[in-house]
Amino acid sequence: MQPTKIDLLINCEWIIPIVPKDRVWQNCAVAIDAEKIIGIFPQAEAAKRFSAHKVYHLDNHVLMPGLVNAHGHAAMTLLRGYADDLPLRPWLEDHIWPAETLHLSEKFVRDGTKIAMAEMIASGTTCFADMYFFHEAIAEEVRSAGMRSQIGFTVLDFPTPYGKDADDYIHKGLALHDKYSGQSLIKVACAPHAPYSVSDPAMQVISTYANELDMPVHIHCHETAEEITESITSYGCRPLERLRNLGLLLPQTQLVHMTQTDASDITMLQDHNCHVVHCPQSNMKLASGFCPVGELLDAGVNVALGTDGAASNNDLDLFAELKTTALLTKAVAGDAAALNAHAALRMATINGAKALGWDDQIGTLEEGKSADMIAVEINSIAQQPLYNLASQLVYTNSGSQVTHSWVAGKPLLENRALSTLNKGELIQSASDWRNSIQPKAMD
Amino acid sequence: MQPTKIDLLINCEWIIPIVPKDRVWQNCAVAIDAEKIIGIFPQAEAAKRFSAHKVYHLDNHVLMPGLVNAHGHAAMTLLRGYADDLPLRPWLEDHIWPAETLHLSEKFVRDGTKIAMAEMIASGTTCFADMYFFHEAIAEEVRSAGMRSQIGFTVLDFPTPYGKDADDYIHKGLALHDKYSGQSLIKVACAPHAPYSVSDPAMQVISTYANELDMPVHIHCHETAEEITESITSYGCRPLERLRNLGLLLPQTQLVHMTQTDASDITMLQDHNCHVVHCPQSNMKLASGFCPVGELLDAGVNVALGTDGAASNNDLDLFAELKTTALLTKAVAGDAAALNAHAALRMATINGAKALGWDDQIGTLEEGKSADMIAVEINSIAQQPLYNLASQLVYTNSGSQVTHSWVAGKPLLENRALSTLNKGELIQSASDWRNSIQPKAMD
Repeated sequence: MQPTKIDLLINCEWIIPIVPKDRVWQNCAVAIDAEKIIGIFPQAEAAKRFSAHKVYHLDNHVLMPGLVNAHGHAAMTLLRGYADDLPLRPWLEDHIWPAETLHLSEKFVRDGTKIAMAEMIASGTTCFADMYFFHEAIAEEVRSAGMRSQIGFTVLDFPTPYGKDADDYIHKGLALHDKYSGQSLIKVACAPHAPYSVSDPAMQVISTYANELDMPVHIHCHETAEEITESITSYGCRPLERLRNLGLLLPQTQLVHMTQTDASDITMLQDHNCHVVHCPQSNMKLASGFCPVGELLDAGVNVALGTDGAASNNDLDLFAELKTTALLTKAVAGDAAALNAHAALRMATINGAKALGWDDQIGTLEEGKSADMIAVEINSIAQQPLYNLASQLVYTNSGSQVTHSWVAGKPLLENRALSTLNKGELIQSASDWRNSIQPKAMD
Repeated sequence: MQPTKIDLLINCEWIIPIVPKDRVWQNCAVAIDAEKIIGIFPQAEAAKRFSAHKVYHLDNHVLMPGLVNAHGHAAMTLLRGYADDLPLRPWLEDHIWPAETLHLSEKFVRDGTKIAMAEMIASGTTCFADMYFFHEAIAEEVRSAGMRSQIGFTVLDFPTPYGKDADDYIHKGLALHDKYSGQSLIKVACAPHAPYSVSDPAMQVISTYANELDMPVHIHCHETAEEITESITSYGCRPLERLRNLGLLLPQTQLVHMTQTDASDITMLQDHNCHVVHCPQSNMKLASGFCPVGELLDAGVNVALGTDGAASNNDLDLFAELKTTALLTKAVAGDAAALNAHAALRMATINGAKALGWDDQIGTLEEGKSADMIAVEINSIAQQPLYNLASQLVYTNSGSQVTHSWVAGKPLLENRALSTLNKGELIQSASDWRNSIQPKAMD
């Protein structure tokens, strides 16, 4: 029998396919053709069955689905470390928003998004959900870098250098949605900034379009206790209830943060099949509160992970977020068994894919899915001895161990070198922006 | 004027000396002779004043004091990932202690300690406090690796392969204390395991020796809520009060964990000038509780940082612990300003030095102190742009960015390569131990 010609064969010491659950394959290979996974086979069998255009031998590595960073503001990487150690409102209102008012432009967004994508690719993220402005520029840069992205067009009641009011933001967003409707790697979502920054009439327009176009809704929600109190004062109900009344709790709604979550919120999330995006490092850094991840998972709510923007994290390393999630979920639940290592890996892969409505395409290494994958080297002294691969990936690993990355079978990272972005140019660009945004000497 | 001959001149783009507080020097050099820091000078001035035997030019790096890991069990690195996602008592009683009973030996301790030291050196730790068994072997390996260490001899009421009862542990520990009394890089501490595992008579003996010999006392304390309840049942008071009654709250006492800390505990810590060692990742992973770091620091209590053993963390990267500390302190205090980046760096350096009674020697880069230092490369895409070096070191850094390390002017790490330990041998040794401890297939 003649071997079947395929594009790519990746032999890897270990494979974590995510489905079947909790499994680690050893000495297997993933076969890829026409952007998709054909299957996982023992290495010897794969060598006989296939003749691949390109063959990898990754002998100290684990191959797994690319990570899904389900919330961030990529361009804000240009403000990483610009204003630290401050609470959410003064951080946002006295520092970040004024800096954005001064500097936000299409070029800011292009340059910041590229730097963010370089960091995300290098640390294992292949798919990210973004919420920012100048989405046309973001979409172009995402296509050029070859990543997969849900691009959320921000809607606000107040003007920015990008839009003058809610109608204007929505109008521009819908134009982007139409333009990219046929793209396999780009999805456009409507991203009302937060319940406190978007009025009822604008929310109703969003609800209409989200329902009509089956468009994802991506929104910051229940981030701080103050947000709840203000909503009760202004609207007579908690923000989540207000969103429900406005018809915005949909199966494609992604609620980011949810640090203030009581039993009635959990019931509402269950009833409406909404997704929660947990951003533990940002929530801790801004002292926003603790999301009850263990309770949400127990209630069957889908919980994905996000880094949030680099201005409040300050990195975009989803492996670091994964470790923080596992540790914090246990600590908050008061139960060391509240989230095990395999469950944490699912949150960063298939749960993210589900939240973005992409679980038919990504999030696991299964036949027929898109070849969105990463290889992680398990060879550092900090990863020895090796009793339990999932534990090692969650508790001793960081994004710096990622060596390879593919989206739809196309390489984005090879032996730790970026394939589609130029690191040297990006570091220069970051330095130029720093000089322009804050020209004073350090310290 | 003839330039002064010195051993070492390190030119570095940035220097964080820790003292003066909150400062970052740029384009300076540290001059070192006879194991000690002579001073910090502008690079041009240093080039004129000194003729150094060895000169470094670290152009993308920050030089800072080596990190002090103030609590761990180095040899337990051989049990990294052996039993994860379990609560403290079953983790300890059903898994870790049985494994130790089967495998604990002098060779286990030598091999495990070497692997731990390799990881600690590679990630920026130059000084560590250890609590384990077979201390003679630990001391020999520490000397051979060139690290600085406070070696705590564990005291327990029950037997282990190392000792038969409390008297036996104390006897062996005091012999080690005598033997190493003249060593500048090794200090011997008495380490009663915990209030719940050491009886009053043994504690009284320890108190006598600690007072007589001015010997540090290193003890797990108030790690879980259960520990408090049990103490009240058995002794009629909280463990901290019992230690005070036994004369064990001394200015050289290091209380590890303190996740259960009320106002009366804080007053007692203030009154007795004791030190707290905070191990946030271990506390989170075992769901032990939250140490109120912000309140302790506000009360003037010295709080140092520890990774704890690799069996409950699972890495020994103190930069990761530093980030977790900064994030968790804010989250627990409900105040994003509760601990800023510079304060977090102090916890990992000078506070650790104070806790171990070594602040006259290490913890800052000041004239006359021992040249215990590290260089950290700030060049990754995740560290751009650079507005605030301390923020970058705390929030976007990890141990993998450490390139150089010196203890008393002697190099332990150069360009990320270990100088005194053999990485390949250690990885082989870890693999051999894994096969011996858990020979079954993974998964």
